[in-house]
Amino acid sequence: MGDITAQLADIVGGHNLLTGDAIPDDYGHDEELTHPPQRPAYVAKPATAEEVAALLKVATQHQIPVTARGSGTGLSGAALPRGDGLVVSFERMNAVLEVDTTNQVAVVQPGVTLVDLDAATAPHQLRYMVHPGELSSSVGGNVGTNAGGMRAVKYGIARHNVLGLQAVLPTGEIIRTGGKIAKVSTGYDLTQLIVGSEGTLALATEVIVKLHPRLDHSATVLAPFADFDQVMAAVPLIIASGLGPYILEYIDNVTMAALVHTQNLELGIPDQIRDSCQAYLVVALENRTAQRLDEDVERAGELLGELGALDVYVLEGGSARRLIEARENAFWTLKAAHADDIVDTVVPRGAMPKFLAAVRGLATAAGGGAVGCGHAGDGNVHLAIFCADPMARKKLMTDIFALAMELGGAISGEHGLGRAKAPYWRALEDPVKVELLRRIKQSFDPAGILNPDVVFAP
Amino acid sequence: MGDITAQLADIVGGHNLLTGDAIPDDYGHDEELTHPPQRPAYVAKPATAEEVAALLKVATQHQIPVTARGSGTGLSGAALPRGDGLVVSFERMNAVLEVDTTNQVAVVQPGVTLVDLDAATAPHQLRYMVHPGELSSSVGGNVGTNAGGMRAVKYGIARHNVLGLQAVLPTGEIIRTGGKIAKVSTGYDLTQLIVGSEGTLALATEVIVKLHPRLDHSATVLAPFADFDQVMAAVPLIIASGLGPYILEYIDNVTMAALVHTQNLELGIPDQIRDSCQAYLVVALENRTAQRLDEDVERAGELLGELGALDVYVLEGGSARRLIEARENAFWTLKAAHADDIVDTVVPRGAMPKFLAAVRGLATAAGGGAVGCGHAGDGNVHLAIFCADPMARKKLMTDIFALAMELGGAISGEHGLGRAKAPYWRALEDPVKVELLRRIKQSFDPAGILNPDVVFAP
Repeated sequence: MGDITAQLADIVGGHNLLTGDAIPDDYGHDEELTHPPQRPAYVAKPATAEEVAALLKVATQHQIPVTARGSGTGLSGAALPRGDGLVVSFERMNAVLEVDTTNQVAVVQPGVTLVDLDAATAPHQLRYMVHPGELSSSVGGNVGTNAGGMRAVKYGIARHNVLGLQAVLPTGEIIRTGGKIAKVSTGYDLTQLIVGSEGTLALATEVIVKLHPRLDHSATVLAPFADFDQVMAAVPLIIASGLGPYILEYIDNVTMAALVHTQNLELGIPDQIRDSCQAYLVVALENRTAQRLDEDVERAGELLGELGALDVYVLEGGSARRLIEARENAFWTLKAAHADDIVDTVVPRGAMPKFLAAVRGLATAAGGGAVGCGHAGDGNVHLAIFCADPMARKKLMTDIFALAMELGGAISGEHGLGRAKAPYWRALEDPVKVELLRRIKQSFDPAGILNPDVVFAP
Repeated sequence: MGDITAQLADIVGGHNLLTGDAIPDDYGHDEELTHPPQRPAYVAKPATAEEVAALLKVATQHQIPVTARGSGTGLSGAALPRGDGLVVSFERMNAVLEVDTTNQVAVVQPGVTLVDLDAATAPHQLRYMVHPGELSSSVGGNVGTNAGGMRAVKYGIARHNVLGLQAVLPTGEIIRTGGKIAKVSTGYDLTQLIVGSEGTLALATEVIVKLHPRLDHSATVLAPFADFDQVMAAVPLIIASGLGPYILEYIDNVTMAALVHTQNLELGIPDQIRDSCQAYLVVALENRTAQRLDEDVERAGELLGELGALDVYVLEGGSARRLIEARENAFWTLKAAHADDIVDTVVPRGAMPKFLAAVRGLATAAGGGAVGCGHAGDGNVHLAIFCADPMARKKLMTDIFALAMELGGAISGEHGLGRAKAPYWRALEDPVKVELLRRIKQSFDPAGILNPDVVFAP
């Protein structure tokens, strides 16, 4: 181990290598709820792709498991290290290298946070549109989990907004994939294979992301519904209307009450309507002119009324922003309420009513509860699971995931499998696919050093 | 061979298996220009995924190279069979299985043509937006090549519009990937790995495609420019304007003259302007209301004027449609003019002026010519190469591709490598990536039976 420490320190410099008790607690966990923290053996903070490559060569040589870390805001435990492992922390590789207005892309290092990227692109009236709740998350983390978020209904997920990578293979080879180009049909798409691979195939050391024009005018419409099924039935019709919302969320009444209470939201909804409401739709619209936005908001209001909304509230700038921020913080609210686990399952949007009704039934039968909100336009359901008994909870989670898959969905829409959801996936997925993925993993990582507990069993 | 014939006939039925001289010439080629046709040993026409699986098992058992065939409209030779090979033709698997309006997807068999899919979705006011020039192409072919086309600037390429697959592995195992869902983060994305793999990894037997609302109002604006560089400089500014064109093409003056001549186009452009024009921009806009469309067309006209257009023509319904159709048929026009090869290179859109100027210089130096048109919004350049001498042409093509890669682009934007462009790719690509792709190929196809001449050398 002394030898390994010396080798690693040689690469990044002694002050950028932490070992043993000198490693702060933060490096031992991400925001996943069910696993205890685990202090790694080493934390290295490289400054260049070449340093990352040298670290991976040493790790391969000594069979050291490697976990990449961005901001540590993941929700599935993909950044949870092994006790004998090396954390490669990208905190020093946090530069926006270029904002290219002609090609409408930014070239960034993986440690850049979404807040910093937004600040760098704002002066150019451009924006990276992937918008997971946590804006301190890093672009590298977005790549690893294939992050989604509220704006995905219009702008797509990380997969649609990451155009190219520089990445280091576990062998220490450095490759470039994609580029400042929106299309390519030249061999297999390595960019898209690495996006969403949760640090199990290669480590991204540079990311080319797509930027979109910032539209000047936006508004948020909030519509309470008496009936959950009405909310879900409304979603496809809003999508088909051509209004093109950039946010289309549902929030159930329990979650909304918690958000209002913990974050002092003032939405101007009378008690009587609030009490008879089972769920809310949040519809955010944007346009390049104020007049068009006003027309679209009016049309959205009419449409929501026709679809059975109890009322329609057009939120002003400040309260609209606070509602969206509260929605971003829903995870923290539910964590503070002592949720035992979380689910970010995706199902075909038309299957949401059936899925949510069945999940409520399953949770009740398990002696627990399931409440939440989600990206209704994408069929991506975020649930906090309350079920204290571990055995009952494991069965409940398995039943929920099995149901989602039976309805044509998948276990995770945007958080990834990490360590937390991978065992469910291995139990429920077609074994032919599990084995195929394992062979793909081996084609990148023959020594099996990259995040060996994530996706696959070690 | 008699034994193999009997085994294959057992699977698909004798009348759905062709051998020897009974095989029509069409099965021996696609629309690639440089390879002679090659009659395969067998053509099988399966009706189900199970039949495809059984065919691949026999092929694996006897080491028979397998080439999948949709409509045979590919431009890179990915559907060009081996003489000792089996063509799996999807012509009988041509059903639209479902148009799901709630989830806005269609589920189709791979042999469905774009014309038939468009007819099936039109009554629902929905549309599959991938629009390669040739509308007799099949959805399965779109999956194989990761097809793009004119609408990609707004709606993305096949990769963005294929949400899920049923696919048969060379081992005969049948898997399902993705689903009626726009996002998923549950293991590696097999859908996106198979899209664009040109029949070298697995054969798609069912495809779930995304549908978009058909907007009721559209218009086409044609703008001649005196100077090539002005055209290219205009493109990023049109994108940044927020007008959101669904087509943004350039056509050089030689190609436009050929289109006008061969297809009797009447565009109403005075001789004087036509003679002083080096290239044209075609900008198509759409909206859900006529009034907004009119406003957008006016704004586009102003903008094009500010950007240096010699004039701006708003084309009426009929002539707009004929211009777009002529552009779709550009390949046939250039083929009829005896083009020696074609290029569909992609570069960052900002690099197009430099790339096109350098290509013209290279072509002239080689004693040939390079003319064309392209998806300007995507940096995807379509060139017809005129250079009769094979050695000079090979060097010219190599120089063009090397330049594109040096500028941060790639050899093919939407046609694929096929047999025709794969040798250039192997010569120019980072060998680390070629070897990585080869290992990925082996993880799907250990016997190496699927299109062994495509992407890799056999």
